[in-house]
Amino acid sequence: MIRRQQEQAVEYKCIRSGIGDTCMRKLLSGEAEMYKKGRMFNHMTLLPGNSIGPHTHSGDNEIFYFLSGTGEYDDNGVAVRVGAGDVAVCNSGESHALKNDGDEPLCFIALILYD
Amino acid sequence: MIRRQQEQAVEYKCIRSGIGDTCMRKLLSGEAEMYKKGRMFNHMTLLPGNSIGPHTHSGDNEIFYFLSGTGEYDDNGVAVRVGAGDVAVCNSGESHALKNDGDEPLCFIALILYD
Repeated sequence: MIRRQQEQAVEYKCIRSGIGDTCMRKLLSGEAEMYKKGRMFNHMTLLPGNSIGPHTHSGDNEIFYFLSGTGEYDDNGVAVRVGAGDVAVCNSGESHALKNDGDEPLCFIALILYD
Repeated sequence: MIRRQQEQAVEYKCIRSGIGDTCMRKLLSGEAEMYKKGRMFNHMTLLPGNSIGPHTHSGDNEIFYFLSGTGEYDDNGVAVRVGAGDVAVCNSGESHALKNDGDEPLCFIALILYD
């Protein structure tokens, strides 16, 4: 089955009291399409100045894979510069946040797998 | 935890008797890092002229998300043009293959989740 970009569901959402909305393009639509192994496989776009607020994962694990742009990733309270090619893993029990403090959109894949 | 691109394992492999090697950069290293929910989350690069041979999935499901380049995807025997933004899903019991018949590298995310 092929799903073209224009057929993929897009949601704009303020995530975890961050700044602005994050554009979430759903590569798979939630748990049912993920064989109940997780609940998110999205192409995310965070515009300059926008952020995802800090939050802790419990019972699931989130992986970010950065495709383009640059930003500041909060890795359990430690600020880390991130950009294309980097992978960030937030396991269950850990916390993270993300801010686009650059000049171009920060694009990344977000994958959430259950614990 | 941040894993930089240069710290990610890279494997060059001829896949399913296809033409040439596929470059597989492991964003997560197999089942253990995937919380036993799957066995692959890779950034793949297929050079022009190269291919992944046809094969059937059994007990797992593979999702390709195309990032750049163009190619011909074999979706259960039906040839489909694919390029950036497209998602291809091969569920357990289905078959697929992929050929880069374009002029630039065909880059995509490959995610395999168990059934």
